[in-house]
Amino acid sequence: MTKILGVIGGMGPAATVAFLARVQALTPAQGDADHIRVVMDLNPQVPDRNVRPGEAEAELGRMAERLAAAGAEVIAMPCNTAHAQAGAIRAVCAAQGLGFIDMIAATADAAVASGAKRIGVLATPGGERLYTDALAARGVEAVLLDGADREAFMARVYGVKRGDVGEAARAEILRLAQVLAEAGAEALIAGCTEVPLLLRADAAPVPVTDSAEVLAQACVGACL
Amino acid sequence: MTKILGVIGGMGPAATVAFLARVQALTPAQGDADHIRVVMDLNPQVPDRNVRPGEAEAELGRMAERLAAAGAEVIAMPCNTAHAQAGAIRAVCAAQGLGFIDMIAATADAAVASGAKRIGVLATPGGERLYTDALAARGVEAVLLDGADREAFMARVYGVKRGDVGEAARAEILRLAQVLAEAGAEALIAGCTEVPLLLRADAAPVPVTDSAEVLAQACVGACL
Repeated sequence: MTKILGVIGGMGPAATVAFLARVQALTPAQGDADHIRVVMDLNPQVPDRNVRPGEAEAELGRMAERLAAAGAEVIAMPCNTAHAQAGAIRAVCAAQGLGFIDMIAATADAAVASGAKRIGVLATPGGERLYTDALAARGVEAVLLDGADREAFMARVYGVKRGDVGEAARAEILRLAQVLAEAGAEALIAGCTEVPLLLRADAAPVPVTDSAEVLAQACVGACL
Repeated sequence: MTKILGVIGGMGPAATVAFLARVQALTPAQGDADHIRVVMDLNPQVPDRNVRPGEAEAELGRMAERLAAAGAEVIAMPCNTAHAQAGAIRAVCAAQGLGFIDMIAATADAAVASGAKRIGVLATPGGERLYTDALAARGVEAVLLDGADREAFMARVYGVKRGDVGEAARAEILRLAQVLAEAGAEALIAGCTEVPLLLRADAAPVPVTDSAEVLAQACVGACL
């Protein structure tokens, strides 16, 4: 029996749409009816996770409750950074018997499975903290950007949110991937859902584990 | 004050995702928070609208109710054919004071505004009936495919639902657009949400009014 997927989205909006397309692409389907039913709340007005984390967590919990009421049986949130505020979502899922797919844990597991001992992380500051801890718990060291490179990364993430996925943005993200590889990363985690909108995995200097792809695959596995 | 958009989707799944991307592309946004909040039920298991219309209508009504409960203030359904079964959705919207954007009426209005008196319709048999009536009510004659061409069109629509948006499919839809133009159509309505996944408007032999684009623009207008 297939399950209904609940998507807590909007962080950002384009990344959520790309995630939905990915879930469909990973679903073996000969027609409409073979696809997974998805209830979604694409809410671009969730309070800023960096500035107002408590309010963000409460809002994410309310979104999970509404999705549960709309029939969701498995909950996923295609935003790495917001997983730092996933506590209320987890509580709703536990109380109502819903599954919650932890994007950070699933991605860290997938990246570590490659055998790499130093893994570069392309993520927001909040995402970097989550992945550094998740990788450390698996005996792997995180390699991070710093200084101007870190600022350049965030500028490109915000650029995607304005619709900028052009060549200059792509070249810059590729350069930052190379910076991490030169700093010793044997593999990379695309740990922000905006990254795959700019970085083609097959163009990167080392193997990339794409958090959006990992989450989409986990959703298909949980719902089909 | 912006409004929350409720999307009754899944008919088909890829067309719904393309529609969401279109709404975002038409939204003037400098960051996440400028985008429209969307609650969606992407339900690929709605009973076949051609085979079990009554069951389909009842299910679509239940989807509208759930979206209203999830906060939707304006309802849109990016599937032309299913508008023949929109009665229960209209009833829910009327009872709860929600707006329902009629994709057929909005698209017919937009197409007729060009001044064309004979308009070709690329749509499923159910969609053809809706557009023939809508155009007639506006004093315009619908030009339709027939015979093998009509079957070829439906084969390509079902192909999209299997993921086939390749070159052969695109060439075939372009050929069918030319058939309608040669039969006297001065303009075309892409009256099935799968069509724009195959037909580039700027490649068509006559001006194309894309129902998905019209609906997305109407949603942005209603929600911002």
